[in-house]
Amino acid sequence: MNNFSFQNLTRLIMGKGTIARLSEEIPAGKKVMITFGGGSVKKNGVYDQVKAALKDYQTVEFWGIEPNPAIETLRKAIALGKEENVDFLLAVGGGSVIDGTKLISAGLLYEGDAWELVQKGSATHTVPLATVLTLPATGSEMNNGAVISCRETQEKYPFYAHFPVFSILDPEVTFSLPPYQIACGMADTFVHVMEQYLTKTGESRVMDRWAEGILQTLVEIAPQIHENKNDYQLMADFMMCATMGLNGFIALGVTEDWSTHMIGHEITALTGLTHGHTLAIVLPGTMWVLREPKKSKLLQLGARVFGITSGTEEERIEKTIQRTEAFFRSLGLTTRLHEENIGTTVIEEIEKRFNERQVHFGEDGLVDGKTAKEILERVR
Amino acid sequence: MNNFSFQNLTRLIMGKGTIARLSEEIPAGKKVMITFGGGSVKKNGVYDQVKAALKDYQTVEFWGIEPNPAIETLRKAIALGKEENVDFLLAVGGGSVIDGTKLISAGLLYEGDAWELVQKGSATHTVPLATVLTLPATGSEMNNGAVISCRETQEKYPFYAHFPVFSILDPEVTFSLPPYQIACGMADTFVHVMEQYLTKTGESRVMDRWAEGILQTLVEIAPQIHENKNDYQLMADFMMCATMGLNGFIALGVTEDWSTHMIGHEITALTGLTHGHTLAIVLPGTMWVLREPKKSKLLQLGARVFGITSGTEEERIEKTIQRTEAFFRSLGLTTRLHEENIGTTVIEEIEKRFNERQVHFGEDGLVDGKTAKEILERVR
Repeated sequence: MNNFSFQNLTRLIMGKGTIARLSEEIPAGKKVMITFGGGSVKKNGVYDQVKAALKDYQTVEFWGIEPNPAIETLRKAIALGKEENVDFLLAVGGGSVIDGTKLISAGLLYEGDAWELVQKGSATHTVPLATVLTLPATGSEMNNGAVISCRETQEKYPFYAHFPVFSILDPEVTFSLPPYQIACGMADTFVHVMEQYLTKTGESRVMDRWAEGILQTLVEIAPQIHENKNDYQLMADFMMCATMGLNGFIALGVTEDWSTHMIGHEITALTGLTHGHTLAIVLPGTMWVLREPKKSKLLQLGARVFGITSGTEEERIEKTIQRTEAFFRSLGLTTRLHEENIGTTVIEEIEKRFNERQVHFGEDGLVDGKTAKEILERVR
Repeated sequence: MNNFSFQNLTRLIMGKGTIARLSEEIPAGKKVMITFGGGSVKKNGVYDQVKAALKDYQTVEFWGIEPNPAIETLRKAIALGKEENVDFLLAVGGGSVIDGTKLISAGLLYEGDAWELVQKGSATHTVPLATVLTLPATGSEMNNGAVISCRETQEKYPFYAHFPVFSILDPEVTFSLPPYQIACGMADTFVHVMEQYLTKTGESRVMDRWAEGILQTLVEIAPQIHENKNDYQLMADFMMCATMGLNGFIALGVTEDWSTHMIGHEITALTGLTHGHTLAIVLPGTMWVLREPKKSKLLQLGARVFGITSGTEEERIEKTIQRTEAFFRSLGLTTRLHEENIGTTVIEEIEKRFNERQVHFGEDGLVDGKTAKEILERVR
């Protein structure tokens, strides 16, 4: 087990009807800027629930934080928030709205251009932020990370600020989600867990079991949710998987990877393909190209999550990778680049960017431009 | 899934050499009262490490917080702390030292007698408290609970205060623990998990997997630790089990029981038998007497933790209870009351106390005086 220091400050409030608790959780007298995405919350009743709960607060609304939140949009939100002197932020939406609002929370107290904060990578001076989650996927509701994009330069980088002071998760608000968003959320969650799990064996028995427990749950509930996405218990389980998958609880003392994410971010930046979907394509490639260094963990994954226990080691690993890809396809996602009309240009651009930045992603630093290209060629 | 609200504020600092970090974590200028148990920390080097780390602080030492910390002792610590105007507490020891120090943290800011706080059951106004854990068992290092005893009246009650601001866990400090303490710590951890797990099925797939993951780990590491308690990785895994077993991480949205603990507390209060040991005796009785209402979960436990999948339901449940008792015995603990010379007098006193207090413990409120007696008769 590696030495670690861990703290997660977010209060997680989960269950039916919990949006009404907003007024108990936000200190009285706060001027709240509520941030939203594209407007689906007006159709599914979430907007009305939030407004009803905040009727005694001064509120300002900012609409239009897009998927892969763009600095171009967030600058406008920061300007509005400064003008209105807001002192509390409530992100109502999925991971993109929450991520974008994390940058706003720092930008409100920063004099320069907020892209500078993204380039620094983190900020400690922030306005308090809470969330009402509408799409289980990124785990942003219970961590301090965000990913911010720049449309102009087609770049996408991680950024760290404070944990949300609280996050409200009502599984019922997910019933109206489009199937593609649910599929991408499941893929995102699955790969978050894999990035923290599929590295070295024998570092922490409990963390291994907990990561496997989330993967097993996803594999179990995915086909059922595919049939019926209005089952409260199933969607509550899915929400738990997503939040627990990236709140630090499964990363205590273990080595992480994240190279699949770094490659996926580039694909999204270059093509606009939804984040979770890029991961469903990249991960089987990463597993294949790194099957030798990740051998022991792949065998453990196969045995414990997919029940693959017979055959040679090579056969078991191959089956495990196939089962992973089959899981993504069962969600309704494509798993090859050509299916999304992504080809040589994108692969070569990613290789070039990784080479220029001299990156060495992954637990052993093996993923550089050349390896990224190999991974992408494998899933071409 | 039940609605829930969860927050755990403790910073967990784990690993080799982490005691030296005390000076980074305690704000400069604090006057620290360090609380200890009986003195084993002077033999295993922990005392020297703590003192070295705190060389730039004003410190006061309080020694002698006993197993099942007694209000009689804690009153003295509170008097000393008030006299010395301490404004930070550092508990160095196992669950009893930490539990006792939680009451001290509230007692220092309370004008009346601290036993009144125990009778109220909780306190919100406290002096900040941190811990250096020396015995994995109670989980007190990462929760806000404590159990306080009164020697005079032979009573023992739960008490809730604040979370430790941080807790330091260095697996190396556990190498010198006596085997009986390790065994009791493992039994305590195992039963903590069971109290949060062995209730209803189908409430949360992730929580079920996580609870089972800790149980599986304990079953896996116990015989190895029995052979060699100086293996860093094994003791780190054990520490993780104990802390994760009672920090709320496996209790999100699920129904809990705790009747085994309530019966165990009475046995300790009446006979002085170590807490974890009482649980090893009581749990198999609870499982047997409540095997009908707990049927589905017992079958799940048997299948997933002990691999018991053949036979009739009744046979599988019986095997699961036998395997649980065998686990405790493999730790070197007795599992029957007569083996500890506990008989009718104690059983009848517990029945009487439960009847007088009109308790209905357990997830369905089934455990009253009569049922407690049945449970204890079963493991007589």
